[in-house]
Amino acid sequence: MRAEPQSFDRVLSSMCTEPHPVAREAAVRFLATNPGDPGTYPQVSELEREAVSRLGDVAGLAEASGYVASGGTEANLQAVRIARERADDHRPNVVMPESGHFSFRKAATVLEVDLRVVPTDDDHRADLEAVRQAADEETALVVGVAGSTEYGRVDPIPELGEVARAVDALFHVDAAWGGFVLPFTDYEWNFAHASVDTLTIDPHKMGQAAVPAGGLLVQDETLLDELAVDTPYLETTSQATLTGTRSGAGVASTVAALEELWPGGYAAQYERSQANAEWLAGELEALGYDVVEPTLPLVAADVSTPTFEALREAGWRISRTGSGELRVVCTPHVTRAMLEAFLADVAELTPQATAPVSSCD
Amino acid sequence: MRAEPQSFDRVLSSMCTEPHPVAREAAVRFLATNPGDPGTYPQVSELEREAVSRLGDVAGLAEASGYVASGGTEANLQAVRIARERADDHRPNVVMPESGHFSFRKAATVLEVDLRVVPTDDDHRADLEAVRQAADEETALVVGVAGSTEYGRVDPIPELGEVARAVDALFHVDAAWGGFVLPFTDYEWNFAHASVDTLTIDPHKMGQAAVPAGGLLVQDETLLDELAVDTPYLETTSQATLTGTRSGAGVASTVAALEELWPGGYAAQYERSQANAEWLAGELEALGYDVVEPTLPLVAADVSTPTFEALREAGWRISRTGSGELRVVCTPHVTRAMLEAFLADVAELTPQATAPVSSCD
Repeated sequence: MRAEPQSFDRVLSSMCTEPHPVAREAAVRFLATNPGDPGTYPQVSELEREAVSRLGDVAGLAEASGYVASGGTEANLQAVRIARERADDHRPNVVMPESGHFSFRKAATVLEVDLRVVPTDDDHRADLEAVRQAADEETALVVGVAGSTEYGRVDPIPELGEVARAVDALFHVDAAWGGFVLPFTDYEWNFAHASVDTLTIDPHKMGQAAVPAGGLLVQDETLLDELAVDTPYLETTSQATLTGTRSGAGVASTVAALEELWPGGYAAQYERSQANAEWLAGELEALGYDVVEPTLPLVAADVSTPTFEALREAGWRISRTGSGELRVVCTPHVTRAMLEAFLADVAELTPQATAPVSSCD
Repeated sequence: MRAEPQSFDRVLSSMCTEPHPVAREAAVRFLATNPGDPGTYPQVSELEREAVSRLGDVAGLAEASGYVASGGTEANLQAVRIARERADDHRPNVVMPESGHFSFRKAATVLEVDLRVVPTDDDHRADLEAVRQAADEETALVVGVAGSTEYGRVDPIPELGEVARAVDALFHVDAAWGGFVLPFTDYEWNFAHASVDTLTIDPHKMGQAAVPAGGLLVQDETLLDELAVDTPYLETTSQATLTGTRSGAGVASTVAALEELWPGGYAAQYERSQANAEWLAGELEALGYDVVEPTLPLVAADVSTPTFEALREAGWRISRTGSGELRVVCTPHVTRAMLEAFLADVAELTPQATAPVSSCD
């Protein structure tokens, strides 16, 4: 165990980030606790109620219900599971824009529901008309994305909520990544803006809590009943989570981060991250790359495969969209200095624009 | 965030324990890593391969495949999922003794398979004949328990494996809790002893790693293919885990604990824990309680509800079996001194045996 985790100096691909110091400290303190066993670990169980309440503040939900999940995948899967249990149909369907996270594909496989993936529009947002056409009486859930993984785009959430209502389906918003930056934008994305039933918001992404800390919020606490399983030996009556033993570190660091950063610290971080994304987008454009405008702190640019591979070789942790574009996620650990170093490497690998042919002589 | 986690001084109910100091140190060091994103976090990804290989050593599996899960619930659910995917039937069934963990009930609900729960024998072990009768051609999986949650019992694993083979089902062993004590007993429980396809063994229980660290091992790596989901943006081709982002802390602390403790440290710990369990069982019996003999370090005793409640009131973290017996799990943090203090409280609450009527005077 002499292995050292790499530093975050060259990590531009992660949806997660370095936990805030206060979040790290709380995680370490609660490392050996298990909110999945509240009869044994009552303190962390109490902290989880506080975490959910504070996540509700972020997502426009008074009297919030939900829990701190292992991450966005679990939260999304559980939202699909709630919808499946509520549906009358033997094999209901879920309607999702193609910008939805792959965890919904996993959920559909695990839960044996049909996933109807519909196209996005020219700006990578859900195509409302396509969603409307795909939704029918067997639709159990409509998914909207508030901060997509590939391009950081926000779907028209209120309108999608109306589509869901029209077919008597539940409406889920995946704000796993976007949830801690969207409050500082003009987007309509949460329970206060639309008819949202369930929402994913991950403290361990832009929330600067320690992994594993995902968040599932539900508009009505009876929705959690769909997930409840009896727990014979735990001195509690039932368990709504997908996992059993859970991380007290994630729960405690969520509370610590929210206590420290909501709302001022997150607002300041959003400003820094967004400014970084816009700066990087501008510089890449100046180098001649096609750039997808960063409406949230995430930049996508059409960099060739050899350039991409060379940047990976140089130690940069970067990844690609499904269409092959370079993605840079401007999480809190991504500083301007890092981006400057990265851009210098990109510039070096960029084929020189052909110099205008000299006409003298 | 001034909350402090309670100490382990009075925790007798947890299947988890305080992580070993080297495991804690490794968890803290890898707190901000994510083995679910190996393209970004290659070091912890490499550590996970080592963790799986070392878990294979414990469970009698050379060339081990599998992964470090969030816990036993995920590992058990994934085993059921593999079996469901392998089955031809639309709605296959899973045969499990009633001593099986409630995570299988959760798995059956999530995965929509039929769970056939069969009785245990007088010693709380799977009744082989009952399992044989319940298994049929629609059985996708037979479950055996190696260290049951309520009584620490080990099912007849080789024989259950034969029952599974006879109906062409997969065979799963749940050694989530028992896996780190069974190697020091005469029980036949693992891949080397029987025809086992999948096995759960949790480092964060008797393995003294930090939460969350469960283990899923598979006899043949192609079994993991049943779980694979494409991962478009992660610079890896697919993901077999149920969750997405995962805890590097759990992975690193698993490797650290195994490096430090396997096999000598675990053997010594087993001896201490087993001696503690036998001592406690003897003392409770002497106080007049019916005790279930601790064949592994777990004691169950028929303590009345008022006594149980009074012990909880006194701050002891204890829990009950489904039939209402007190359970004491002798995990590594449970010392003889703790048990002596606990027993003193039990004795004080025990109704005095009627003194023989004095015949003098």
